[in-house]
Amino acid sequence: MKTLIKNVHLLSMDKQFSEIKKGYVLIEDHLIAKIGSVSELDSVTISADKVIDGRNGILIPGMVNTHTHAGMIPFRSLGDDVPDRLRRFLFPLEQFMTKELVKASSDYAIAEMLLSGVTSFCDMYYFEDEVAKSCKEMGIRALVGETIIDMPTCDSPQPSGGYDYCEMFLKKWQNDPLVTPIIAPHAPNTNTPEVLKKIVVLSEKYNAPITMHVSEMTYEITEFQEKYNQTPIEFLQSLGYFEREFILAHCILVNDHDLKIIEESKGKARVAHCIGANTKSAKGIAPVKKMIEKNIIVGLGTDGPSSGNTLDLFSQMRLFANSHKTYHQDRALFPAREIVRLATIGGAETLGLAKQVGSIEIGKKADLTLIETESVNMFPIFDPYSAIVYSANASNVESVWVNGEQLVRDKKMVYHKLDKIRESLYREMREFVIEAKKR
Amino acid sequence: MKTLIKNVHLLSMDKQFSEIKKGYVLIEDHLIAKIGSVSELDSVTISADKVIDGRNGILIPGMVNTHTHAGMIPFRSLGDDVPDRLRRFLFPLEQFMTKELVKASSDYAIAEMLLSGVTSFCDMYYFEDEVAKSCKEMGIRALVGETIIDMPTCDSPQPSGGYDYCEMFLKKWQNDPLVTPIIAPHAPNTNTPEVLKKIVVLSEKYNAPITMHVSEMTYEITEFQEKYNQTPIEFLQSLGYFEREFILAHCILVNDHDLKIIEESKGKARVAHCIGANTKSAKGIAPVKKMIEKNIIVGLGTDGPSSGNTLDLFSQMRLFANSHKTYHQDRALFPAREIVRLATIGGAETLGLAKQVGSIEIGKKADLTLIETESVNMFPIFDPYSAIVYSANASNVESVWVNGEQLVRDKKMVYHKLDKIRESLYREMREFVIEAKKR
Repeated sequence: MKTLIKNVHLLSMDKQFSEIKKGYVLIEDHLIAKIGSVSELDSVTISADKVIDGRNGILIPGMVNTHTHAGMIPFRSLGDDVPDRLRRFLFPLEQFMTKELVKASSDYAIAEMLLSGVTSFCDMYYFEDEVAKSCKEMGIRALVGETIIDMPTCDSPQPSGGYDYCEMFLKKWQNDPLVTPIIAPHAPNTNTPEVLKKIVVLSEKYNAPITMHVSEMTYEITEFQEKYNQTPIEFLQSLGYFEREFILAHCILVNDHDLKIIEESKGKARVAHCIGANTKSAKGIAPVKKMIEKNIIVGLGTDGPSSGNTLDLFSQMRLFANSHKTYHQDRALFPAREIVRLATIGGAETLGLAKQVGSIEIGKKADLTLIETESVNMFPIFDPYSAIVYSANASNVESVWVNGEQLVRDKKMVYHKLDKIRESLYREMREFVIEAKKR
Repeated sequence: MKTLIKNVHLLSMDKQFSEIKKGYVLIEDHLIAKIGSVSELDSVTISADKVIDGRNGILIPGMVNTHTHAGMIPFRSLGDDVPDRLRRFLFPLEQFMTKELVKASSDYAIAEMLLSGVTSFCDMYYFEDEVAKSCKEMGIRALVGETIIDMPTCDSPQPSGGYDYCEMFLKKWQNDPLVTPIIAPHAPNTNTPEVLKKIVVLSEKYNAPITMHVSEMTYEITEFQEKYNQTPIEFLQSLGYFEREFILAHCILVNDHDLKIIEESKGKARVAHCIGANTKSAKGIAPVKKMIEKNIIVGLGTDGPSSGNTLDLFSQMRLFANSHKTYHQDRALFPAREIVRLATIGGAETLGLAKQVGSIEIGKKADLTLIETESVNMFPIFDPYSAIVYSANASNVESVWVNGEQLVRDKKMVYHKLDKIRESLYREMREFVIEAKKR
C-alpha cells in the first residue's frame, strides 16, 4: 500500500532542518519511502494507491509527548489552583480509579493526543495493561510504565505492588511493534531505597527503560538533603539509575552536579520537560538552556490532564518559548525552530525512539502530522516554525499518520468516534465524580 | 427582535460571579433583557422570535482585547525571535503600509477576534479611519486611536502628522454606537514633549480617551531617567495625562511610585496588560499582582499580531496564569475565575465600557461568547473557569453576539467569508511581502 501526501510545506526536522516548500512524502506500508519536491512528482504519483492533497499545510513529524498520565482524564479541571493538589486531591481520589475507568480514560486521552498531532507518548499510571491495550486499539505508539509507589494503590492493595504488576506487564508486552513496556517508579521520595534498588535489577533483566518524576518538589529535595545529604539525582546515581535508559520527568530543582550526572550518562538519561505543568503549579522553570548546552537530550511533555491540562504540545511549545525567553531575558533564545525540534525529534530521542521516528527521513516509520494553514490564525506564514509555535493550536491539526496508517482525517478520527469514547468515559466516571464533588 | 439562548452554563462575571448551571439569556434588540434558569423558561420561550440551543456550552460576556494593532496582520510570523524587532522590522516595513492594506488587515484581524470570542477591542495604528470603517462593516465594538509619533509615517509625511489626522478622526466618529475614537500617542519616548502636551489639550477638547505604550522598553526608562530624572509615568503625570481617561499599554517596568500615580488617578488611568507579547519578547512580567492589590483596573491585551501573535484571549489567559503564578511562586495566585474576570469585565473597565458591556447583566448590551464543550479538550468540566483558562483555545468558540447581533455561528462568521477576506488581504500585501522577504 502506497500513500502519497502532496502539496505540503515539509519540515523534516532532520539534522540539517531540511525543508521542502512544496513537497511530497510517499508512504509505503509502515515506512517513509520517498520525499521530494512536487515539481518532480510525476512518476511517484502513478505508483501511489492513494493520493492526499495537503493543500499547502505544514507537514511535520508526529509530535512526541514525553510524559503524561493517560488514565487521569477524570481529574481535569479539578482543584487547579489549589496548593499541594497532589496530596489533597490526586492521591485520595486515585482509590476510586478502576481498571475500566483507566481504559476509558486512556481511550479518551489517546484520542486527544492523536487529534492534536501527537503520535508517540510516554505514560505512567496504574492499570497500565489497560493503557497498553488502548494504545493498540487506537493505533498510537507509546512507552507504557506501571507506577511503583510505597503505598496501596487502586491496582494493588500492598505498598509497592506495582513491582509485581510491572514484571507481568514487561513479559506480556515485550516485542510489541507499538507498545514498549517500561518501569515507572513514582518518585525517589515515594519509594523505599530497597524497592528502588530492585527496580534497577528488573530494568536490567528485561532491558526495560525506566521513567520517574525526579527533582520536581521542594519537599523531595529537602528530604534527600536531610536524610542523605544528597540530591535525589545523586541518590539515584548511587543506585545505578544512570546506567539504565532513564527518562527523568520534570528536573526543575536540579543543580550543576545533577546536570553533570545526567550529561555523563551520555544520552542514557534524558529529560521530559513539562513547562505547562511546572509553571501552572508555580514549581519553577527547569534549566533547559543549560541542559541543551551540555548536550543533554530534552523532550516536551504535557504531564497529566490534571496538571497540563491538555495533552497537546502546541500549548507546551508556546509556554516553553515565552517562559524560557523571559526567564533568561533573551528574546532570541530558543528560536521557534528549536522548539519544534524539542516537540518532535527531541521527544523521540528522549523516548529512545529516534531511530524509528521523530523526523521525516526515508526509511523511518511514517508517523506524520499535517497542520492546515486555512484557519484564521495561520496567515500569513513567513516562517512555518513561528506559525507552529506562536500561532497554531491543537485544532489546526488536519491529518495524522502513525506507522503509515492514517488515524486522523479532516480533524476527526478515522476509526473511532469521539462522542462514543466520551460516553464510555462518562459512564465509568460516575463514582469518581460523586467523590470528587465532595472535595 | 427577541433571541433566546438556552441550555448554557452561564458565567455572568458580575460582582458576585453569579453562575447559572443550566441557564438562559434573552436578548431583546441590542440588550440583555432576561437571565434565568432553564427550569423557569416556559413563558420566555413563547415570546422569543429565535431560539438557540447552547448544548451545554459555557456562555460568557464577550471578551475584551485592550490593546492591539489590527492593521499589522501582514507582519505575523516575521522575525519573531529577532532582538529589537521594533526598529529592525516594524518601523522600516511600516512605510509599505497603504490605506487599502490597513483596511484589508483590519477586516482580517476583526474576523480573527470575532471567531475567538472577542467582542470589543482597543486599537492603535495608522489609517485608523479604515480600522473604524472595518469595525462598522464587521460589527465589532472598539476604541480606535490614530498613532501620533515623531517621525514620518505611512499616512502622514510630516513627523507627528497623526495629530491632525486624529483631530479629523475624532470629529468624524464621535457619537458612533460601536466605534469610540481615541488618541494614540505611540510612546513617551517617541513623541516630543510639545506634542505630548498638545495631545492632552486635544483629549480635553473632544473628551477623548488616550492610549499609549508606556514603560515597555528598557531604553525608554533609561532615556527618561537621563533626560528628566523621572520615570515615563512621572513625566506623563507632569503633563496632565493622569487627569484624562488613559489606557496604558504594557507598564512592565514600573516602580511603586508609578503605581501610586496610576492608583491615585482613581480609575482614570488603567492598564492593558499584554503578557504574551511581553514574555515572548523577554521584556518581563508587569507587576499585575501589585496593581490589583492597589485596585488599579487591569485588562488583557493581545498586542499586535506580530507581537502576540494571535488575537485571541485564550492564549493570553493561559500565559497569564502560568507566568504570574511562577513569577510569584504561588500556585493559588490568580485562580482561573480571576483571570476570566480580567478577560471580560476587567477589559471592559479598562476601556471605559463597563457600563455597557463586560458582564451578563440585565440592561447591558448583548455582547456574548458561547464556548462549546464538545471538543476533546473540554471534558470533564468540574470548574468552567478552569476549563476556559487551562483547556480551551480559540477554536472552541461556537457563537458570538455583539450589540445583540449574532456575528459568529457554528464557528463561522455569519455575514462574511474568511477566504474572501484573506484573498483581499493577500492581494494588498504583494509589495509588503517583497520588501519583507528582503530582510
